[in-house]
Amino acid sequence: MKTDRSKVKRIPKRGTYDKETIYGILDKEFICQIGFVHEDHPVVIPTIYGRKENNLYFHGANVSRMLQSMEAGVSLSINVTRTNALVLARSAFHHSLNYESVTLFGKAHLVEDNAEKNEALRIISEQVLADRWQEVRKPNAKELNVTKVLKFKIEEGSAKIRNEGVGDDDKDYELDIWAGLLPIERKFKKPIPDPLLKNGIKMAESVKKVANEEL
Amino acid sequence: MKTDRSKVKRIPKRGTYDKETIYGILDKEFICQIGFVHEDHPVVIPTIYGRKENNLYFHGANVSRMLQSMEAGVSLSINVTRTNALVLARSAFHHSLNYESVTLFGKAHLVEDNAEKNEALRIISEQVLADRWQEVRKPNAKELNVTKVLKFKIEEGSAKIRNEGVGDDDKDYELDIWAGLLPIERKFKKPIPDPLLKNGIKMAESVKKVANEEL
Repeated sequence: MKTDRSKVKRIPKRGTYDKETIYGILDKEFICQIGFVHEDHPVVIPTIYGRKENNLYFHGANVSRMLQSMEAGVSLSINVTRTNALVLARSAFHHSLNYESVTLFGKAHLVEDNAEKNEALRIISEQVLADRWQEVRKPNAKELNVTKVLKFKIEEGSAKIRNEGVGDDDKDYELDIWAGLLPIERKFKKPIPDPLLKNGIKMAESVKKVANEEL
Repeated sequence: MKTDRSKVKRIPKRGTYDKETIYGILDKEFICQIGFVHEDHPVVIPTIYGRKENNLYFHGANVSRMLQSMEAGVSLSINVTRTNALVLARSAFHHSLNYESVTLFGKAHLVEDNAEKNEALRIISEQVLADRWQEVRKPNAKELNVTKVLKFKIEEGSAKIRNEGVGDDDKDYELDIWAGLLPIERKFKKPIPDPLLKNGIKMAESVKKVANEEL
């Protein structure tokens, strides 16, 4: 998955083109930033995705400008970034971030087959919250008709990861300055039931499974 | 800050061009996704930023390809997105996300004045962790020389926010399906001191202030 465009130029030891590493990072998230060129200018927009094999699926309303721009098969660049810890050095210069980031290149195409469209929506749903799809009312024909699904094939991609401690200049270790990592945690908090929930409805299993789980 | 390019086309009620709303979202984060056009193709890369007034500052190594591409004053698009809750409806179709997102357009220019460069680095540091800058060894001349700082002026921008409960179709409220919000929390966890920390160094005040605080 390595080409000149996706080559990690800075600090090459942090870069990897390994598919499993790239997929591993993609599979931990469900929001990506998509960049495309619109009248010679870049536009970056966030969207929800679901990965299956070497493809990402996106969905949206038929009238979405973003999807309309993308379905014509224009070049896209996609970034997914997780920030895991602040790296607090003794010197301002050596402050850093522990993170995992993926940048992808490729094109998207409209999914027209209804079976694949349904399956793509399931994949996106599973990416956001595993097992939710099986609990809910599935899209009907009318809903499917107003929904657009795009399939993005990963043509090139790279991952960049920093997962290290503090590195200061030798002489700075003598300074009386606290240094260390400040980890960042993301988790689901206590679910808030819809006020219009029918009496006696138990919390969904999909929700129970992840409440208070780290994301 | 509203032009055709930044106009929120979908669900206009979620869009705003109000500067204070845009700044408010920017000020809660420190990572953005920057998109630029490189040889007719989009490239999206994450970076740390600091906001001052109507500008964002970025920094990196002199040799950074991203900064080299950007300093020539090319068009940039920047997105910052916070995901606050999964919105779990009774129907797959009405699942949604509560989020805050900002998309900006503008250009970046190299900061050449050393005083502004120093101040920009302080602003970036403050954005990531308030008060850390005053605790650490400041950049020396050599470090400043190998660091590049860019200033991005926000020419256009819009914010998009969803902060609502579940909205299902009337007849779906009768279904025996749990619905509600699943809030997402991001916070700093327990700091991990550098194993090479000198004996007797107390935890930094900047770190103490935010440990276990929501981000």
